Amino acid sequence: MLNFDYYNPTQIVFGKGSVARLSQLVPADARVLVLYGGGSAERNGTLAEVEEALGERTVQRFGGIEPNPSYETLMEAVALIRREKLDFLLAVGGGSVIDGTKFVAAAVYYPRDPWHILETFGTEIASALPFGAVLTLPATGSEMNNGSVISRKSIQAKLPFSSPHTFPRFSVLDPVKTFTLPPRQIANGVVDAFVHVIEQYLTYPVNAPVQDRYAEGLLQTLIEVGPQALAVPEDYDVRANLMWTATQALNGLIGAGVPQDWATHMIGHEITAMFGLDHAQTLAVVLPAMLDLRREAKRDKLLQYAARVWNIDTGSDDARIDAAIARTRAFFESLGVKTRLSDYGIGTDAPQRLLAQLETHGMTALGERRDMDLALSRRVLEASL
Amino acid sequence: MLNFDYYNPTQIVFGKGSVARLSQLVPADARVLVLYGGGSAERNGTLAEVEEALGERTVQRFGGIEPNPSYETLMEAVALIRREKLDFLLAVGGGSVIDGTKFVAAAVYYPRDPWHILETFGTEIASALPFGAVLTLPATGSEMNNGSVISRKSIQAKLPFSSPHTFPRFSVLDPVKTFTLPPRQIANGVVDAFVHVIEQYLTYPVNAPVQDRYAEGLLQTLIEVGPQALAVPEDYDVRANLMWTATQALNGLIGAGVPQDWATHMIGHEITAMFGLDHAQTLAVVLPAMLDLRREAKRDKLLQYAARVWNIDTGSDDARIDAAIARTRAFFESLGVKTRLSDYGIGTDAPQRLLAQLETHGMTALGERRDMDLALSRRVLEASL
Repeated sequence: MLNFDYYNPTQIVFGKGSVARLSQLVPADARVLVLYGGGSAERNGTLAEVEEALGERTVQRFGGIEPNPSYETLMEAVALIRREKLDFLLAVGGGSVIDGTKFVAAAVYYPRDPWHILETFGTEIASALPFGAVLTLPATGSEMNNGSVISRKSIQAKLPFSSPHTFPRFSVLDPVKTFTLPPRQIANGVVDAFVHVIEQYLTYPVNAPVQDRYAEGLLQTLIEVGPQALAVPEDYDVRANLMWTATQALNGLIGAGVPQDWATHMIGHEITAMFGLDHAQTLAVVLPAMLDLRREAKRDKLLQYAARVWNIDTGSDDARIDAAIARTRAFFESLGVKTRLSDYGIGTDAPQRLLAQLETHGMTALGERRDMDLALSRRVLEASL
Repeated sequence: MLNFDYYNPTQIVFGKGSVARLSQLVPADARVLVLYGGGSAERNGTLAEVEEALGERTVQRFGGIEPNPSYETLMEAVALIRREKLDFLLAVGGGSVIDGTKFVAAAVYYPRDPWHILETFGTEIASALPFGAVLTLPATGSEMNNGSVISRKSIQAKLPFSSPHTFPRFSVLDPVKTFTLPPRQIANGVVDAFVHVIEQYLTYPVNAPVQDRYAEGLLQTLIEVGPQALAVPEDYDVRANLMWTATQALNGLIGAGVPQDWATHMIGHEITAMFGLDHAQTLAVVLPAMLDLRREAKRDKLLQYAARVWNIDTGSDDARIDAAIARTRAFFESLGVKTRLSDYGIGTDAPQRLLAQLETHGMTALGERRDMDLALSRRVLEASL
């Protein structure tokens, strides 16, 4: 096992009816900004439920945070907070709203141009407004970590940051809030959580059986509940298990003490920034090619993945690896998430353009051994067409 | 899945050489009391290493905290802290030292007689001194939770408390610090962690596959690394995996959203209080009889335990349950931990005396359904002879 630090102070309040707990979770004298995305939180009554729980507190709303939340939009929230002297943020939505809220929390009193937060990956954040979250979309794990990914439309950039100051104080997870999600968002959430686990699990062995087994348990659970969540949208237990799995997939625990990859995410971010694909779509496209082309470096864990997650235990080593990658691709496709760039109308000129952006953003040494150069990224992208 | 709250703000600093990190983890102006147990922390150099990392800070020592830390001893530490105006506690040891430190932290400024903390299970604790831990014995999980069990010799009582104020600020986990532990303490630690998992796992199903799989992964890991830790004391990875498993076994995660039992622990505490057995010895004695006599209420999970943890998948349901219980008993015995009261020289008059203490301490409705009355506790104790 590798040495590690683990710290995660976010309080989780999980279960049916838990939105009402906001009345105790938010400080009684808080001046609250509720941040949300499109109109669904308004239409399905979640915003009203949140505001009822907040009672007599001063509450303002800021809607319109996009999927892949944009710097441009978020800076409007920063201006509103400064103008109205608000002091507590409440994200109501999925990973994009929570990621955006983290940025806003750090930006309000940041002493420089807030884009500097992204340029320095959050390392110079010295404080942030306190914030909580009401999660409505199980996918990114942002509700229980300190990471965030922000896009800047004007320069086609999508960059991550994190800081010890950007953990949610609390997150309210009510699986009922996911019943009305469109199937595409559920499918994306399953793929996103699945690839989060893979990025922390499918590297090379370091004798960490606790982390390995928990990762495998999360993958097995996603394989079980993903199709059920699409087939029976109002099955509480299915949605509860999906929600908790997605949270556990990226709260630091399975990644503690083990190598981490994240190359699929870094390449995927460029695809979203340039072509606008959903985040999960980019992961479903990149991962199968990535695993195939990096099979030597990942051989031991690919064989473990084949055996323990997919119960593949016959055939040569390479045949079992091929089968595990094929099962992974078929799982994503079975959820309705396509796994080829060409499925999204993206052509053969894309790899060259994406490579230029990877180079611009310094993504020239990716992967758990930092040995994935642009030449290998090119092969992955070409194999993803 | 059941509704739940999960909150665990303890920072974990894990790995070889991590004691040196105390220089940043403890506030620079702290007036520190280092609490420890017997002389081993002095003899093996850990105390010196701790004090070197603490540098110029004011540091006092308080040694002699017993296994099953006693109220009487801990109140001496409380007096010392008040007298010397110390403001930060550092536990150096295993679960007993950390449990004792939690009590001391809560007792120093407790507005009533501190025994009231135990009488009210910690529910009236309003604040506590900040404290951290350097773990030297993987077993109880106290390094990453807010629970504690304190004994009072004068009245043969052993009672638990917990509070949101009694989480360690941080815990330093260096597996190398466990290399010199006596085999009996390693074996006890494996049994203790194993039964912690069982208390949260082996109840009744609530459709919580994430929690189930993580619990099963922890049990499988203990079954693997327990014998190795005894056979090859200086294998770093084995000790690291044992240490991290024991921490995960009782940090709240596997118990979130599922029923919990703890009857084995409550009966075990009475055995320790009356006869002085090691905590783990009492668990090894009580658990096999407990599972046997409660097999109807636990049938579904016993069958899952047999299949997934012990790979028992032939025979009738009862035969598989019998086999799983037998494997559990044999596992404890293989570590050198005896599983019968008579192995410890305790005779047939014990059940009656222990039942009287259970009644005195209000332990008359135990278990995940609170339906385990004194009559059933009597049968368990008689079957444990």
